[in-house]
Amino acid sequence: MKDLVSRVNAALEEGCPSLARSLSDLGRRVVLPAGIPVQAQEAKGCRFNGTIGMLTDGRGNAIPLPSMAAAFSGLSKEDQNRAFLYSPVAGILELRQRWREWQQRTAGGGETERAASSLPVVTGGLSHSLSILADLFGGEGRAVLVPAPFWGNYNHVFGTRTGARLISAPAFLQGTFNGNVFEQAIQQDGSLTPDEPVIAILNLPSNPGGYSLSDAERQQVKESLLRIAESRPVLVFCDDAYAGLVFEDAISSRSMFWDLLNLHENLLPFKVDGATKEFSLFGGRVGFLTFPFEAESSTAKALESKAAGLIRATVGSPVASSQVLLLQALRSETVDQEVEDVRLLLLARYRKLQAVLAQVDPALLRPQPFNSGCFALAEIPAELGVSAEQLRCHLLEHADTGIVSIGDRYVRIAHCSVDGDSLQELVNRLVAGISELASLGANNPVPPQETVPHQVAS
Amino acid sequence: MKDLVSRVNAALEEGCPSLARSLSDLGRRVVLPAGIPVQAQEAKGCRFNGTIGMLTDGRGNAIPLPSMAAAFSGLSKEDQNRAFLYSPVAGILELRQRWREWQQRTAGGGETERAASSLPVVTGGLSHSLSILADLFGGEGRAVLVPAPFWGNYNHVFGTRTGARLISAPAFLQGTFNGNVFEQAIQQDGSLTPDEPVIAILNLPSNPGGYSLSDAERQQVKESLLRIAESRPVLVFCDDAYAGLVFEDAISSRSMFWDLLNLHENLLPFKVDGATKEFSLFGGRVGFLTFPFEAESSTAKALESKAAGLIRATVGSPVASSQVLLLQALRSETVDQEVEDVRLLLLARYRKLQAVLAQVDPALLRPQPFNSGCFALAEIPAELGVSAEQLRCHLLEHADTGIVSIGDRYVRIAHCSVDGDSLQELVNRLVAGISELASLGANNPVPPQETVPHQVAS
Repeated sequence: MKDLVSRVNAALEEGCPSLARSLSDLGRRVVLPAGIPVQAQEAKGCRFNGTIGMLTDGRGNAIPLPSMAAAFSGLSKEDQNRAFLYSPVAGILELRQRWREWQQRTAGGGETERAASSLPVVTGGLSHSLSILADLFGGEGRAVLVPAPFWGNYNHVFGTRTGARLISAPAFLQGTFNGNVFEQAIQQDGSLTPDEPVIAILNLPSNPGGYSLSDAERQQVKESLLRIAESRPVLVFCDDAYAGLVFEDAISSRSMFWDLLNLHENLLPFKVDGATKEFSLFGGRVGFLTFPFEAESSTAKALESKAAGLIRATVGSPVASSQVLLLQALRSETVDQEVEDVRLLLLARYRKLQAVLAQVDPALLRPQPFNSGCFALAEIPAELGVSAEQLRCHLLEHADTGIVSIGDRYVRIAHCSVDGDSLQELVNRLVAGISELASLGANNPVPPQETVPHQVAS
Repeated sequence: MKDLVSRVNAALEEGCPSLARSLSDLGRRVVLPAGIPVQAQEAKGCRFNGTIGMLTDGRGNAIPLPSMAAAFSGLSKEDQNRAFLYSPVAGILELRQRWREWQQRTAGGGETERAASSLPVVTGGLSHSLSILADLFGGEGRAVLVPAPFWGNYNHVFGTRTGARLISAPAFLQGTFNGNVFEQAIQQDGSLTPDEPVIAILNLPSNPGGYSLSDAERQQVKESLLRIAESRPVLVFCDDAYAGLVFEDAISSRSMFWDLLNLHENLLPFKVDGATKEFSLFGGRVGFLTFPFEAESSTAKALESKAAGLIRATVGSPVASSQVLLLQALRSETVDQEVEDVRLLLLARYRKLQAVLAQVDPALLRPQPFNSGCFALAEIPAELGVSAEQLRCHLLEHADTGIVSIGDRYVRIAHCSVDGDSLQELVNRLVAGISELASLGANNPVPPQETVPHQVAS
């Protein structure tokens, strides 16, 4: 086992020194051991196979309970078997290959980018992909740069769990995207040594912002990341949870993962994506993790061993039944249209919400720029003395309306879960609530509260 | 957030000081934050609900892709919705309640035990339940006592991930179960202070042993754990992965979790179980975690908040589609018979393997006692100079046969994945392999190798 760890670490040090240097303590010591899953894999196809603690008919077929098999009656016998039996620790190979094709065909690049990226590893959803990266590269004090406001689960996945330190700077300055947001975060923090590795989280389309970059902004971000990479390793975690949900012709839906490959030995993008939003499979928990190294390279294999080691040690193996579900879609001839139908549904809601918010009095509510994803973010003007959390509770109690409060003064509207015809009334009630609370202002000042600057409640 | 952590920790300190004292650093700082899942829960049922980033028709219904919905055509519309949408972080309430009923009805206790235990939290499988416990109570240097040989993933879940220290003693002494195995592990280690908290893992039926305790052995283990608890907190993790798979009338299938409740303020059992083996749902990844505190008590709620915080930070939420699958079985009127049919299938294989192994020459292979679960464990006599790994590789290469090698001299035979008619031939080939390797002994000595005493390769 020690030998195996040394070999895997040596492969990483040879293949990518800046990556090896960025590993956490846990990242350094973890690999997929040559244990039962590996021994079972080696025995696959044996006439007599008594390796794995999984109930089969002795010829590799599952023995599902009839009541559960009936629910999956839309599956072929072979797929039923796969759904009820263990998945390989790194995921079902057919799914990994088909997901790679999907990545390439939709928001991906061409042959060059394909050659420079790995076969995706299957995880238990996008959060699990992030938590694997956090285990590998986070840890006590590691700097995680993130534009604000951001999805609050980053705090828990990186900060609470591994002790990493989240450092943010505003995503928007005067209503325009802040292309130097990562450099600015480093400067404002002021505590990093020049060659200290950093993690940068790039979540596009963004949560809670619902924002994707213009071509000019992408170029700015790329140049800024390259400047950071001049002196230190930068691991860019591309959280593509909302991939494909882009609603303006001028905005590209291509993941920045592809643009950041092979630019600099210190600049290392990782792709975090999955079926959750892209395939409307929220309950299925199928995520992926793609590395910036050629599929069969020793560096990719070493990283895959570490990721699989963490999958084994956190959840045993990824969920097979949902992988089989996703395969049904990826094998379907109509998959592109099925996914596009979802986008078109959201597009209509997006247009409606844009129109509704354009009519709102900016003295009461200030929508931030949004062009993609599932959300719109809006700011409550500071001078009103109304906190986002006050507003949220007020709307729940008096207006039969739910929105998410973020930090002191932001609210997030999820148009993905509201039908288009209701968006006008939802925004009406939201603005009326602000108005009511503001008019009570003098008698009912915002209580001093723990501020959570630049952060999404999660 | 800090306030919330303090409140949750205070509830644990008041409700169970010995538990609070046993928390790891991560265990102390984690809770489920009042973020998006909590805000979305509060807004459930609102006429206008724009809280959650989940695609619905605006009235709470899922919008699955047609190709995936077709696979689940055996589900009602309501269950399809639940399968495709996010699960609550602690699991679907109906499932948690039905699993509790199942626990009680099968291997559980009566009203007293029910009153002293919590509603189970849903996790992503038994390994995930263990990794949550490892995060809460493991950490650098924490002693984890475990009878040997044991499932190797304990090493990774507790040791590699959290830095805990696995301490083992032999499960069997001269072919009899070692009732003082946990005390012996403490004594042999010799480094623990008298009041230092310890974790004890009780895996029954066992992997790789396929062994469950007799009534007298249960009593011995209980008394031994009570003696340990006189001076220190003992957290007993009851890994009931193979619950119900008991094949001898004299052996009880009741989980020791129920027997250890309410015995001593320092003796704290935790129940780890799930659908994987019990319901033949290996690919589904549905596990549970049950605490030794009354369901609605502030102690149970505090622990649930910590477990849910870790679920959120590792996998986002547990897989909904598999929870819905399991619900189909738990709601079925024939569920008891369906599960019993699986046990009967294994019972036949178990009897066959017992008969086959009884005929084996003990000079070549020495079966350990087994009476339950999915496995039989057998020892290769040391004097033959044949290592388990040598044998495994030899069988793969020359006999079209797969078994699992464990440490230097043990092999595990998984009868659960071999049909009954093949067991004789599998054992024949295994014994022939040993014989062949032993006869080469003088020319081909066992190479010196890293020994992994008392441990399962995993």
